[in-house]
Amino acid sequence: MTSAPFTEEAIIRLISRAVGPAGGELITGIGDDAAVIAAGQATWLVTTDLLVQGVHFNLDYTSGGDLGHRAMAANLSDLAAMGAVPRWGLLSLGLPPPPRRRFVQELIDGMLALGREHGLVLAGGDTTAAPVVTINLCLIGEAAGAGPVTRDGARPGDAVCVTGWLGAAAAGLAWLAAGRSAAGAPEVAAAHLRPQPRLAAGRALAHGGLVHAMMDVSDGIASDLARLAAAGQVGATVQAGRLPISAATSRAAGELGADPLAWALSGGEDFELLFTCDPADLPAITAAVAQAAGGLPVTRVGEITAGEGVRLIRADGRAVDITMAGFDHFKPGES
Amino acid sequence: MTSAPFTEEAIIRLISRAVGPAGGELITGIGDDAAVIAAGQATWLVTTDLLVQGVHFNLDYTSGGDLGHRAMAANLSDLAAMGAVPRWGLLSLGLPPPPRRRFVQELIDGMLALGREHGLVLAGGDTTAAPVVTINLCLIGEAAGAGPVTRDGARPGDAVCVTGWLGAAAAGLAWLAAGRSAAGAPEVAAAHLRPQPRLAAGRALAHGGLVHAMMDVSDGIASDLARLAAAGQVGATVQAGRLPISAATSRAAGELGADPLAWALSGGEDFELLFTCDPADLPAITAAVAQAAGGLPVTRVGEITAGEGVRLIRADGRAVDITMAGFDHFKPGES
Repeated sequence: MTSAPFTEEAIIRLISRAVGPAGGELITGIGDDAAVIAAGQATWLVTTDLLVQGVHFNLDYTSGGDLGHRAMAANLSDLAAMGAVPRWGLLSLGLPPPPRRRFVQELIDGMLALGREHGLVLAGGDTTAAPVVTINLCLIGEAAGAGPVTRDGARPGDAVCVTGWLGAAAAGLAWLAAGRSAAGAPEVAAAHLRPQPRLAAGRALAHGGLVHAMMDVSDGIASDLARLAAAGQVGATVQAGRLPISAATSRAAGELGADPLAWALSGGEDFELLFTCDPADLPAITAAVAQAAGGLPVTRVGEITAGEGVRLIRADGRAVDITMAGFDHFKPGES
Repeated sequence: MTSAPFTEEAIIRLISRAVGPAGGELITGIGDDAAVIAAGQATWLVTTDLLVQGVHFNLDYTSGGDLGHRAMAANLSDLAAMGAVPRWGLLSLGLPPPPRRRFVQELIDGMLALGREHGLVLAGGDTTAAPVVTINLCLIGEAAGAGPVTRDGARPGDAVCVTGWLGAAAAGLAWLAAGRSAAGAPEVAAAHLRPQPRLAAGRALAHGGLVHAMMDVSDGIASDLARLAAAGQVGATVQAGRLPISAATSRAAGELGADPLAWALSGGEDFELLFTCDPADLPAITAAVAQAAGGLPVTRVGEITAGEGVRLIRADGRAVDITMAGFDHFKPGES
């Protein structure tokens, strides 16, 4: 055990063990997109996300407004994955001295604009000096409709589905990191700089009560589906040919000589929703999402199996184990 | 306006303006120790604190266990200042790769040990790479008894009081930063490394309903009292000779050739409670705090006045304006 690499997953396991199981009013603790707290009549969803300059964003091609938007989007996405209504937020902001007024104003404006779109009110925070720009957002949401959908309910035979498109944010990041202009590939650049959290879709999915397990795709479907499968003590397969990769992502891959499939599997921060359901319910679910979220597509990309691990079925029919091939901040070779 | 230094206070003002006033279920928003949210039968207090290596702590003389304890103490102190019962916490942890297992284990153990003492359950979090150790804790508490005590209720003629001792944490920091051993001045070293949040005292103060305004002393009484006075649109005086400076703090000052009065006024992170009340209620309040918090003393250090600003009455009777002489992360000359 102690000689195994001390990865992000291992840190989360260490903390989970130290904390012990959820109980009492804490319905779901460490390990889901948000903690679930039942208090009186209400069910609260609470989530937190830390974004660090040089790790999560590069200010060479990310404006203050983009950064505020992205920080809010990443957190709202965790609430979307629980089918929640966003309510309150707390912002911690670390800035290298001296802080620049315009940058802070743009960051706050970008953050609040997206928050307000989704009904979120900033209720408090903390400000401090830091060696690099450091943003922590903690959001509180309220469960809507049939209650929060956790990630542990997948059953063998379930269809594995995603909203929207995969790999676009990674395409945008690769495009901008290569020094190219956002105007040259506006769709993928926007997917990276101004991602749209799927709150309406998440509530539609939770409301119908037909979804068995749900989470957001923040580290790539390979590792996120592995987490969903592990939480439900099941396995999963993904059909490479079914992954929803947009034409803009394919174009960017072509121009950069990159593999769009790798972006779709292991690229981070798409902030789409990953869920499982009975295949017979797919038409109703697809219609509900399209109606609630302005025509947002749902794509069936694979299925839940007995056993464990995630296998990718390639175009040639060969199956490859891709369990946890997504992003881990502390996995050797990643940074 | 734009040529004024862009300090921590200015950043908070910018964010407050962008957010707008509290309203609806948000009773108290940006600017108090914790946000106050009325939801159904319950009143929730929510607070967040960002601690950054090199800014808030130095790992040369702070162990993982000390750090976990301090991070939890700083946050619990914000709940203490509202008279709250701690309930749930969310931890964001940024670590330089590769993370060290023993350090993380000690940090979590130190954090959870103090949290459990006060009934707090860790409900979730986030882990990421970062250039320096970065800890954000967001805590949720529940209002107890007569409800939360905010910082804006001070009235002219009120006594200004503090619990415990001032300047001890700054003494401990100065002692350790000078390269001296914690064993040489255990009381002040512990005040810096293992501060005790005043939760029982805070609840006793809130419960009686006799306290008009309250906050915790995290940046030094000079700036914290200025914030309390400004929130209530009043002024305040502080008697230098009345500031509760422990013998251990005076001894450390003597050995280091430092001024203990400066530590008491402007040293950070004492995590004592600063409050105002009718002078006639002081005996009852003092007795209630002593009973609830194991003999913790309450010291009357000054009074609330009409007007604005904070004046220090020195031993020779001269009055000096000390408004905002405490710590600001972005004030020129501080870091």
